Amino acid sequence: MINSRDIAFANRLADAAGSVIGPLFRSSFSDERKADRSPVTEADKAAEAEMRRLIESEYPDDGIIGEEYGTSRESAGRQWVLDPIDGTISFMAGRPIFGTLIALMQDGWPMLGVIDQPIAGERWVGQIGGGTTFNGKPVQTSGCRELTEAKLATSSPHYFDAGQADAYMKVAQAVGGNKRQGMIVYGGDCYNYGLLASGHLDIVCEAGLEIYDYAALVPVVEGAGGTMSDWQGNPLDANSDGHVLALGDPARLEDVLEAMG
Amino acid sequence: MINSRDIAFANRLADAAGSVIGPLFRSSFSDERKADRSPVTEADKAAEAEMRRLIESEYPDDGIIGEEYGTSRESAGRQWVLDPIDGTISFMAGRPIFGTLIALMQDGWPMLGVIDQPIAGERWVGQIGGGTTFNGKPVQTSGCRELTEAKLATSSPHYFDAGQADAYMKVAQAVGGNKRQGMIVYGGDCYNYGLLASGHLDIVCEAGLEIYDYAALVPVVEGAGGTMSDWQGNPLDANSDGHVLALGDPARLEDVLEAMG
Repeated sequence: MINSRDIAFANRLADAAGSVIGPLFRSSFSDERKADRSPVTEADKAAEAEMRRLIESEYPDDGIIGEEYGTSRESAGRQWVLDPIDGTISFMAGRPIFGTLIALMQDGWPMLGVIDQPIAGERWVGQIGGGTTFNGKPVQTSGCRELTEAKLATSSPHYFDAGQADAYMKVAQAVGGNKRQGMIVYGGDCYNYGLLASGHLDIVCEAGLEIYDYAALVPVVEGAGGTMSDWQGNPLDANSDGHVLALGDPARLEDVLEAMG
Repeated sequence: MINSRDIAFANRLADAAGSVIGPLFRSSFSDERKADRSPVTEADKAAEAEMRRLIESEYPDDGIIGEEYGTSRESAGRQWVLDPIDGTISFMAGRPIFGTLIALMQDGWPMLGVIDQPIAGERWVGQIGGGTTFNGKPVQTSGCRELTEAKLATSSPHYFDAGQADAYMKVAQAVGGNKRQGMIVYGGDCYNYGLLASGHLDIVCEAGLEIYDYAALVPVVEGAGGTMSDWQGNPLDANSDGHVLALGDPARLEDVLEAMG
């Protein structure tokens, strides 16, 4: 379903976005705010516009779902899902741990995903059934025998409502880490899922994500041997509710769900 | 008091630490844990050992306070304060936002500070009364007219006890940001203070820091035009209690203290 031309094109989209975003990193840019007051930058909008232009030119029948400019051809079987800058606040704070997210969905299922960090020059490309690479080299998630040994990540405590925070904190406690000595990192957005694919993190637990936040992550994580699901253990598709769990070792999924429950 | 030889030597220490740490980043390393169970790596210990060796050789009368190997010559007027890897958990998770911290204190007051990020090749060097540079170029903090416009950072919510979390959350609310749309970044440890010196962040608010966590930050932030204090607004010295506030715009200090109080 996904072929080498799709993969080459996804890389071309990431290159194009990075060319727009790179020069604006740590520069004076607009911090205009969207209707929902989330920060959006010139870089965000210009990078998505450029990727959409390439898709319209190369694959005019494919659909597009973008964070900044919405949906085109929503009934198409193939959908490109774009988040030009995931981790906008990190971008605006000058931290090189944001990313450009590009996914190709087939009938609502994410099949190909790219997480690109244009400042550090780091790119994960994953394909369901076809493996994940980091800068062109195959990567694999790590095994994790016990939750107490797990390295956990989430972007921000403010992204959870009270009930979600309660479930998250049970995972934090299960990894032995609701104290300074715990192996929990905050911040990072999509970058954490790339690090998980490369075996440096074991669990990422988030809520409130939109399709353009998580679609690209699924092929990257699962192509590397990990698993992604919602907080009930169901696979993620275009209709998921934005609760996201990523595990490097699929054998720990039941333990995490039990800890949360 | 601080002269160009001291600055050149501090840079040499940072180079030496980076040479040890760089090759171990994202490699298989020991995750041996210290008595207090905080993660410590071979990189941490080897980098501090190398810096101590250089100080013993170059400035044998100076004192040393290091995170890993403790204090030497504690009655010396000049004290080198070393944290080989600040942000060990980020280091272990493969995130290039940890740092090596090097400070030179005179009579308990931090006068010279280095924040070095060896993977990205980023270095802030600050001197009380002498300015701050980022990779050799002078940097300045940003003005911030209103707390509601401020970009706030802290490393982890788990580093606060209940009372500290309460005070921190008042600052988070004051920047309009205890929701997804807020301009608050998590994670980052010392790296956030470098970004504040460069004008990309406005406030960093933390607690539970040790002398080796904050001594180097003071000259970097204050050399760039910002201010650092404890949570009562008192300047930081060797006897501070580990509550730390950094502001890019010193004119906002009273507003932050009032928000917390």
